[in-house]
Amino acid sequence: SGLVLVKNPHLDLMEEDILYHLDLGTKTHNLPAMFGDIKVKSRSKREAAVLPWIGSLAAPPMLLLAHAGALLLPKLLWGGHGMGIPSISIMLHELIKLLHHAKCRDVTIIRIGTSGGLGIEAGSVVITDTAVDSSFQPRFEQVVLGDVVVRSTELDKDLAEELLACSRDIPDFPTLIGHTMCTYDFYEGQGRLDGALCSFSSEKKLEYLRRAYDAGVRNIEMESTAFAALCGLCGLKGESCRFHLL
Amino acid sequence: SGLVLVKNPHLDLMEEDILYHLDLGTKTHNLPAMFGDIKVKSRSKREAAVLPWIGSLAAPPMLLLAHAGALLLPKLLWGGHGMGIPSISIMLHELIKLLHHAKCRDVTIIRIGTSGGLGIEAGSVVITDTAVDSSFQPRFEQVVLGDVVVRSTELDKDLAEELLACSRDIPDFPTLIGHTMCTYDFYEGQGRLDGALCSFSSEKKLEYLRRAYDAGVRNIEMESTAFAALCGLCGLKGESCRFHLL
Repeated sequence: SGLVLVKNPHLDLMEEDILYHLDLGTKTHNLPAMFGDIKVKSRSKREAAVLPWIGSLAAPPMLLLAHAGALLLPKLLWGGHGMGIPSISIMLHELIKLLHHAKCRDVTIIRIGTSGGLGIEAGSVVITDTAVDSSFQPRFEQVVLGDVVVRSTELDKDLAEELLACSRDIPDFPTLIGHTMCTYDFYEGQGRLDGALCSFSSEKKLEYLRRAYDAGVRNIEMESTAFAALCGLCGLKGESCRFHLL
Repeated sequence: SGLVLVKNPHLDLMEEDILYHLDLGTKTHNLPAMFGDIKVKSRSKREAAVLPWIGSLAAPPMLLLAHAGALLLPKLLWGGHGMGIPSISIMLHELIKLLHHAKCRDVTIIRIGTSGGLGIEAGSVVITDTAVDSSFQPRFEQVVLGDVVVRSTELDKDLAEELLACSRDIPDFPTLIGHTMCTYDFYEGQGRLDGALCSFSSEKKLEYLRRAYDAGVRNIEMESTAFAALCGLCGLKGESCRFHLL
């Protein structure tokens, strides 16, 4: 039916579902009327550069996520999130429920933002095929009631290829498909030498990043594994386009 | 000397230290002049309620952190952060370097905000003695170049007792000292039944929360273990006061 899945038997038994961080609720708001026919984009200049491709997709995305931005086009839903997995995870749980309650169909989510590139030309856009963790594995470890549950982080390969093809129509816009590494920390987790704490040498850092490159990683950020895992579990066609930030 | 420690030998060799997320740098800003004599507080109404105690401390804190808020008093530094460990971790790395570059001395950091209470009176304030992870252990697992490093999450017990004593002077303000559990996720990680995904029963949830209570946990949030670990390593006297949110 193309409807957005939620995998939570408790929701049907609840009199009201409150989307705490979105300030919306199923009793206080008519979600199908408000969001039933939305599509998306972002206001940020840098991020807007990717939008020509998105418009060229056979089925334009309904939902576009970014670190910061705002709604701009009508019938498009924008979702902004803070830094890191906990932040995007809260937003995705509530946005997925919103899409479910609003009875949206055939939802494609495209996430855009900046990231640190790895061995690629400055200004490149990396289209993520698979999100990997800090050990370069395609997995997301979710803690559920104190126990670790391992989830897959594969993204939609056809959508990635289609985005790549669309990008080819735009001149001087270097684009590639690669793995995206997701860390829980910006400084020690990504091998930065300029945090308040740093216990490793420049050589060790380079060795780690070289291993990441050899494993297929082309950029590094802090949300992609949770994004991929949640999209996969809820039946959303998802893709993550990250700019390489200089 | 009371100065704030950074444990990073690379910093001394850098010509300039840029605090990316604070939009400050050691070459572009005179950090000692700007921040050398700061102290702190917040504008949020709910959070402001805790401030009378803070003013009663023998040595008022120099730095107060909160989820959202703003500078209010002169000579006090406010630090806002987003949701979750990755977000507070980025801010703390940069704020600790800021305090270091500004040559601030004898810094006490108090962090305030809301949290979910566990078996305590609604509206209570929990003063954290120890931050624990989702297995109720006093540890923070930091990934450094792909390897897990385990760090202690004890907070300053004397400061906790002093805050508790200060709170006693304010009528009708239930306050207690307890462990704070820190999770990476708001929904599945904290046993909520209303996320987009939920694979456990109400009974399993209650069993988990009961085990947490028996282990000394009195509230749950998403940043305390990283806060405690970074404060401890950098020689900052730190305390985390969390309100129990209804």
